[in-house]
Amino acid sequence: MPYGYNGQILRVDLSRGVTSVDAIDELFCRKYLGGAGFVSYFLLKELRQGIDPLSPENKLIFALGPVTGVPLPGSGRHCVGAKSPLTGGYAKSESGGFWGAELKYAGYDAIIVEGKAEKPVYLWIHDGEASIKDAGHLWGKNTKETQETIRAELGDSLIRVAGIGPAGENLVRIACIINDLKDAAGRGGMGAVMGSKNLKAIAVRGHKRPEVAEPERLKELRQWVLAHRELWASFAELGTGAAMEAWVDAGNVPVRNFLDGEFPEIAEISPTAVRDMIRIKMEGCYACPVRCKKIVKIDEPYSVDPAYGGPEYETLAAIGSNCGVSDLKAVARGNELCNAYSLDTISTGGTIAFAMECFENGLLTTKDTDGIELRFGSAEAMLKTIELIARRQGIGDILAEGTARAAQKIGKGATEFAMHVKGVEIPMHEPRLKAALGLGYAINPHGADHCANFHDTWFSQPGPFLDRVRPLGILEPLPADELGPRKVSTFRYVHLYYIILDSLMLCMFVPYDAQQLADILAAVTGWKTSVVEIMRVAERTLTMARSFNIREGLTAADDKLPNRFFQPKRNGVLSTKFYDPEQLEKAKSYYYTLMGWDAKTGIPTPEKLQELGIE
Amino acid sequence: MPYGYNGQILRVDLSRGVTSVDAIDELFCRKYLGGAGFVSYFLLKELRQGIDPLSPENKLIFALGPVTGVPLPGSGRHCVGAKSPLTGGYAKSESGGFWGAELKYAGYDAIIVEGKAEKPVYLWIHDGEASIKDAGHLWGKNTKETQETIRAELGDSLIRVAGIGPAGENLVRIACIINDLKDAAGRGGMGAVMGSKNLKAIAVRGHKRPEVAEPERLKELRQWVLAHRELWASFAELGTGAAMEAWVDAGNVPVRNFLDGEFPEIAEISPTAVRDMIRIKMEGCYACPVRCKKIVKIDEPYSVDPAYGGPEYETLAAIGSNCGVSDLKAVARGNELCNAYSLDTISTGGTIAFAMECFENGLLTTKDTDGIELRFGSAEAMLKTIELIARRQGIGDILAEGTARAAQKIGKGATEFAMHVKGVEIPMHEPRLKAALGLGYAINPHGADHCANFHDTWFSQPGPFLDRVRPLGILEPLPADELGPRKVSTFRYVHLYYIILDSLMLCMFVPYDAQQLADILAAVTGWKTSVVEIMRVAERTLTMARSFNIREGLTAADDKLPNRFFQPKRNGVLSTKFYDPEQLEKAKSYYYTLMGWDAKTGIPTPEKLQELGIE
Repeated sequence: MPYGYNGQILRVDLSRGVTSVDAIDELFCRKYLGGAGFVSYFLLKELRQGIDPLSPENKLIFALGPVTGVPLPGSGRHCVGAKSPLTGGYAKSESGGFWGAELKYAGYDAIIVEGKAEKPVYLWIHDGEASIKDAGHLWGKNTKETQETIRAELGDSLIRVAGIGPAGENLVRIACIINDLKDAAGRGGMGAVMGSKNLKAIAVRGHKRPEVAEPERLKELRQWVLAHRELWASFAELGTGAAMEAWVDAGNVPVRNFLDGEFPEIAEISPTAVRDMIRIKMEGCYACPVRCKKIVKIDEPYSVDPAYGGPEYETLAAIGSNCGVSDLKAVARGNELCNAYSLDTISTGGTIAFAMECFENGLLTTKDTDGIELRFGSAEAMLKTIELIARRQGIGDILAEGTARAAQKIGKGATEFAMHVKGVEIPMHEPRLKAALGLGYAINPHGADHCANFHDTWFSQPGPFLDRVRPLGILEPLPADELGPRKVSTFRYVHLYYIILDSLMLCMFVPYDAQQLADILAAVTGWKTSVVEIMRVAERTLTMARSFNIREGLTAADDKLPNRFFQPKRNGVLSTKFYDPEQLEKAKSYYYTLMGWDAKTGIPTPEKLQELGIE
Repeated sequence: MPYGYNGQILRVDLSRGVTSVDAIDELFCRKYLGGAGFVSYFLLKELRQGIDPLSPENKLIFALGPVTGVPLPGSGRHCVGAKSPLTGGYAKSESGGFWGAELKYAGYDAIIVEGKAEKPVYLWIHDGEASIKDAGHLWGKNTKETQETIRAELGDSLIRVAGIGPAGENLVRIACIINDLKDAAGRGGMGAVMGSKNLKAIAVRGHKRPEVAEPERLKELRQWVLAHRELWASFAELGTGAAMEAWVDAGNVPVRNFLDGEFPEIAEISPTAVRDMIRIKMEGCYACPVRCKKIVKIDEPYSVDPAYGGPEYETLAAIGSNCGVSDLKAVARGNELCNAYSLDTISTGGTIAFAMECFENGLLTTKDTDGIELRFGSAEAMLKTIELIARRQGIGDILAEGTARAAQKIGKGATEFAMHVKGVEIPMHEPRLKAALGLGYAINPHGADHCANFHDTWFSQPGPFLDRVRPLGILEPLPADELGPRKVSTFRYVHLYYIILDSLMLCMFVPYDAQQLADILAAVTGWKTSVVEIMRVAERTLTMARSFNIREGLTAADDKLPNRFFQPKRNGVLSTKFYDPEQLEKAKSYYYTLMGWDAKTGIPTPEKLQELGIE
C-alpha cells in the first residue's frame, strides 16, 4: 500500500451482525483518493436504484483521505456519505475534530455500514479490530452522555466517538452525525441514516501512527503554515465569521429567512460578541495550529456546557440573524442543543426561519405550534422549536422533515418560503451578492453547500484567496455579481479545488494553495503527481455523484435556486439587486459543458463516463 | 519584469527599415508564456485576414520562452511562427541549438519581423541593439558561407546565426530556417516567409545572462537530469531513432511513401549504422548534457561537412526508407544539402517520395524530370532532386511548392500519392500503428507534426513515457491502436504537455515529467504556479491557433488524414491493419468537445473564447 493509506475498508453488516474487511490497492486509491471520492465510488457502485434512504438498503460510509491523521495542519477530517433522506440523491458531508485521525490510527481508510441492526448498537473499532456492541442503554441519550458512557464502559478516556443524539434516532431528516461533541458531518441528513440503522455511535481508538513517504517535505509544509499566521490569524482569533458585521453591510448575511438585509443587532451576535461575552477559549482539531473553534460557557439564563464547543458563523446566522434572533446566549444554547441532539444547525436554523415566516404570514398559528409564538426574533421560540424538532413533537414532527417537505405538508403557498436546493437548506451566504455561489448552490450534487463552493467576493480583488488559486491560472479578479463564461470556468476550478480538499481530507481554513495540495499528496504518498491529476480525480468524483443523482431521477430542473433570490431583499444593500434566472440557466449550461455533461440535461455524456472510467 | 524574461520584443519593419521595441508586462507573460504562446497571440492579433503568406503583410515571429537560455538541460530552444505558405493557416516550428539562448542574452524575448526589405538584408542584434544590414553579398550563399561571412565582417566568431540558404530565397514552400548550421525551425515553410521578406539572416550576440528566481531549485532540477542518465542515454548514444530497426518491425517507419512496411536494408541507414560508419562525434545544444546530435563526416563519394551535423531519425527515414533509399552516405549528403540550402528534411523527403511514386506510376516521366530516373531506391535521384527543389529548377520548381500543390499541378490522380495534412508533409511515424498520433496529425493547427503529438506505443505499457505523464493522472497503459474517449482525453493531455514544452521552450528529449515543467517555470520566474495553469496556457495557445485557422477559412474538413492510411500497407506487420476513418471522425468530435470547440465544426465556441480571454 502507498503511504497514507491503511489499505483496508471495514465493512459492517448490521443486519447480519458481522464485520469484514475489503482490501484496496494503490490504483484504487489513486483514482478515488479518499473522502468524497470513496463515498461517490461506493454509493454509485453499491446502492440499488430507488431505495428508501432510511431503509436498511442504504449504506452509510465514513471515509478518510490520505492526509487524515498525518501531522499536518487541517488533517483532522473525515467524510460521511449515503443516499440522502433530504435530497433523495447523493449526500456527502465533512467533519473535523479527532475522530477521523483516530480511525486512521486504528487501521482503516473507511467504514461502510450496511443493513440495520435489530436493536440499537454501537460499533467499537480499535487497532484493527471491530465489534458490534449493544447500545440499548445509550438510546435516547444525547451525544455527551453517549460518549461518556462508552468511554467509561470500554475503560479508555481517549476513545473518540461519532454518533447521534435523539434527532438521529428519531429519523429527523436534518439530523447530523456529531463527533468529539462539537464537530458535525452536518449536511444531508446523515444522522437520520445512522438512526435508521439503529447505530448509535462509532467508538474508535488506535495506536498506529500513519507513515508518510517524505516526512521532511511534510514538515516544511507544516512550517510554512506556522510561518504564515497572517493567513489564518482571524480564524485563530475569532473563529469563522470574523468579519460578520462587515458581511451584513455587504449583504452576505441572511436576515429573517433571506428576506432582509439589515440587522442592526449584528454586533450582539457576532464572533466578536462571542469572544467578549461568552467565550472561554479557542480549541483546534487534530494536528492543527489554527484552532478556530470557539468554546463558550454560560451559566444563566441557560447553562451551556463548554464540552459542546460554541457557535460557528453558520450557526450564529442560521439560528441568529436568519431567525431574527439577536440574543447571543440563546444562540449559544441553541448550538449546544443541536450538538447534543445531533441536529445540523444550518438546516435547523433554516427550517425554523421558514416556520417563522409561515407563522408571520398566518400559514401556521399557535394552534399548530402548541402555543408557541413562532415569530422572527423570538429566541424562546427558536429554542423550543429545536427541542420539538429533535423529539418530533408537535410542529417539530413536521419541521423534522426539513424545509422542503414541511412546506409541502403546510401547503398554502409555503413552498415560496422554503429556502433550499434539492431539499437541503441554504447556508448563510447570499447569492444575490455572490453570483457563482448561487450557481454552486444550484449544481452541487448534494444540495446547497457553502464549503464546496465559490465565494465571489473573495475573488473580486487581489488578496490571499486569489493567491490560493493563482496556481490554477486564475490571475485576474472578477466582479462578484458577474456570471459569464470566465466566471463559470473559474467557479469550476475553485469548486474542484474544494472537492480535492474533501478527498484528501484537508480543512479549507488552512490556506494551502492549489499546488500545495499536490505537494502534500506527493509528500504523504510518494506519488509523482500534480494538480492536474487531483483535479481529474475531483472531476471523476463529481461526475460519479452526478451520475448517482441522475439514476435516482434528479434532473437539471433540480439544479435551481429558490425564487426569493430572483427578487431583491426588503432592505439593505441588496434591496435593488436580484439574481438573474436567465443568467443562471446560461451559467448552468456552460458549467455542464465544461464538466462534459450534456449542456441541456446535465447528464454526463457516455464519452465522459468512458473517459473517466465510470461504469 | 519577472525573472526569465527581458520584457522586450524587438519589432523590425523591413519595409521602412526601422526597428523598435514593444514592452511586455508580467500578466502578458503569464497568460501566453512564450514560444508558441507568443506566436499564436501575435499572429491572431496582428495579421490581417486573407493575406498571402509570401507577401510583406505576413509577419515572421521568433519567440523565446522563459526557460530559453537558463542553465537547464533542454533550454536552448526557440519557436518560429508565421502564416504558413504551405497550409495557408497557422504555422509554428521549434529549433534547438544556441541561437535562442544568445537572443535571450542579447536582451529580447521575441522578434517580430514585418514588411519586406527592398534589397536583401540581414539583422544584427547585440546586447540590446538592433540594426538592419545589407546582405546583397550573402544572397545565393548557403547557410555556412552566410554564417562565416557575417562572423568575419562583424568580427566575432561567437555570433549565432539563423537564416536561409537558396531554398528560402527562392520561396520554396518547404524551406526552413537553419540556425547554428544544423538546427532547423523546419516545418510549415518558415524559410520561404523569411525569403519573401528579403531577410537572409538574423545574427545575434549577447552578454546578459538571464537571472532566475530560484537558482538552487533550478540546480536541483539540472542535477536530477544528470542523475537519471538512463532516461536519456539512448539519445546520448545514438541520437534520435535509436530503435529504428525495431520500429521497422513494429511498422512505425515509413517505407516508399508509406506504401510498404518491410525494409530489409534498415540496418544500413539506422542510427547504429550512422555511429559505426560515418559518425565522428555527438554534439549538444545550449546547456544540455543529452548531446543527441549526430555529427558525421564523409570524404567520398561525397564530401559531407561535419559543420552541418548529421541526419536525425526523421531525415534517415524521410530521404532514406521513405524514398526506398538505403545508401547511408547519400542520406548524410542529402541532410547536408538540406541544411546548407535551408530545406526541411521531412517535407523534402516526403515530396521526393511522392514524386518517386508519381514516376513509378507514369504520372511523371523522364521528360518531366530532365532525365532523372526518379525511382524509389535511387540515391542519386534523391540527391539531384534536392538540388532542383532548392533552386526551383525543372521538376524542382513544381516540387518546391510542396506535395499538396505539386499533386494539384501534376494531376492525373497524383493527390492520392500526396501524403500531407493541410499541405504539410507527414512525419516519419505511422498512424496505422499509433491511433492517436493520426488524430494529432489531423487536428494540429500547423499540420502534420510528430513532436506536438502522441506516440501511442510509448503509452501502451508501463515505462518512462508513462512515468512522464503520470502526474497528469494517466495511470494505466492504453492499447496503441485504440481511439476511444479515454485515449482521446489522454492524447489531449499529452498534446497540451508538448504545447507547454513549446511555450516554455524546452526540449522533449529531456525527460521532465509534467510536474517538473511547473517546477521549472516556478524556479525560473518565482511564480506560484501549477500544471493546471500551464495547461490552461497551452489550451489558450491552441485555441488561438485554431481561431487563426478558422479565420483563414480552414474547417473541420481540413482535419483529415491522407486516404492511404485507411488502407493496409502492401507488406510488413501492418499489411492487414488500416486506420478506421469513422473512428477518426468520432475521435475528432470528442477532441473538439474536450477543447471547448463545436463538436461538429471544430470552431471554438464564443463561451470558450470568452473564458480564455481571446478576442
